[in-house]
Amino acid sequence: MRILITNDDGVTSEGILTLAKTLAKKHEVMVVAPESERSAVGHAITIHLPIWAEKLSIFEDIPVYSTTGTPADCVKLGIDVLFPNPDVVISGINQGPNLGTDVIYSGTVSGALEGTLYGIPSIAVSSANYLNPNYKTAAKAIYDLLEQFDLSIIPQYTALNINVPAVPYEELRGWKVTRQSKRRWKDYFEARTDPFGRTYYWMKGDVIEDDKDPDADYKAVNQNYISVTPVSIFITEENFFKELKKALSTLE
Amino acid sequence: MRILITNDDGVTSEGILTLAKTLAKKHEVMVVAPESERSAVGHAITIHLPIWAEKLSIFEDIPVYSTTGTPADCVKLGIDVLFPNPDVVISGINQGPNLGTDVIYSGTVSGALEGTLYGIPSIAVSSANYLNPNYKTAAKAIYDLLEQFDLSIIPQYTALNINVPAVPYEELRGWKVTRQSKRRWKDYFEARTDPFGRTYYWMKGDVIEDDKDPDADYKAVNQNYISVTPVSIFITEENFFKELKKALSTLE
Repeated sequence: MRILITNDDGVTSEGILTLAKTLAKKHEVMVVAPESERSAVGHAITIHLPIWAEKLSIFEDIPVYSTTGTPADCVKLGIDVLFPNPDVVISGINQGPNLGTDVIYSGTVSGALEGTLYGIPSIAVSSANYLNPNYKTAAKAIYDLLEQFDLSIIPQYTALNINVPAVPYEELRGWKVTRQSKRRWKDYFEARTDPFGRTYYWMKGDVIEDDKDPDADYKAVNQNYISVTPVSIFITEENFFKELKKALSTLE
Repeated sequence: MRILITNDDGVTSEGILTLAKTLAKKHEVMVVAPESERSAVGHAITIHLPIWAEKLSIFEDIPVYSTTGTPADCVKLGIDVLFPNPDVVISGINQGPNLGTDVIYSGTVSGALEGTLYGIPSIAVSSANYLNPNYKTAAKAIYDLLEQFDLSIIPQYTALNINVPAVPYEELRGWKVTRQSKRRWKDYFEARTDPFGRTYYWMKGDVIEDDKDPDADYKAVNQNYISVTPVSIFITEENFFKELKKALSTLE
């Protein structure tokens, strides 16, 4: 298969390089990714600014492009220019989970969603522990998935958001289809003063895991299952549609 | 009402300042927004970096904070530190539409979605013409909405994504509840060489508006209606859930 790989942690991060090396054992792989983590800028910007792309000499056999764009930009540039007609787009391996409300802000997931706009099966993959990721396990899981899973059944505009427990491969208990949960963060800020007298804030947070759904994404990961959530680019809240229509009908 | 305002175009952009001035005629307003458009960085970053916040002297009566964070960070910092217990969070006025697939990448929308995580009614607002926005019309529309609409009916985890046609206020034809459409971009890249010999790419795109849904967001805007889409932070694709479960059950 022809596999286009991107991420949002940056092109030199261990997660993306481990994934590329693992998949290149069998597949034709190209990496097109942001030059650094800071590149995870909003989508709107690069509509009005150009994108630089530089070929790096990291591997002998795998072409790696470093760009000034976002993960979504990298997927566009990859498919439209550098690596046409890939069979699959994979975004990751992200350092840390993309579970619950993380998903909405995730550059990793948005890279995969971009692939679905082109009608190409697309996967976001994260190693679900920020401080102690296990990229080898996650890369091997994705390798397995490509061996055994028929990507063509994924509908357009839908991506797979995969979170792999950061444990040795042998400790994985299998695959579970899950829902994006209500897992969220209770944030608080610690104010400090920098050497120049300016106030700055460290954000800290406690995770809240109180979702009642037995198929909640984080529950699978906590039990050492690989969590696979089908995610859509469409976010209309249908359950509120009619009531809102009624309420707005009385407005001027 | 106490109104917290953010955006992703930056704290000095005309859209946010017009909105703040319009709403401050009646309400208590605070602006907390990214220092510049470039600040629309991904969410993951500011978990591990601090956020600076500086009070600007733009208005006599409206406090305005410029931060190094994302729109979502600004909402967090606003609610947790600078402006506790707002009655509503408003993100915008964005320069240009947030319609169809724009929504997934929109910093404006993510600012509003962040407000919903706190259980606070939240609105994203865009003036639906990038080159010729009409912020006065959009600001007056939001002012009207706050006068007449009961925000408390909005469910938690749901925000309103509002796109206001960039026409004179008198030409607006009213409000329409819509769905996020399949409106998307067909992109192509133009390669150039910079003075230092490096290749860079301008991305251009043609918009595709072929959605069959009569309630598609862009159709309302094209007909000079204000488009109001209820949007959720949850993006699980339920229609593919069972089939995916079956397919993955055969894996190792």
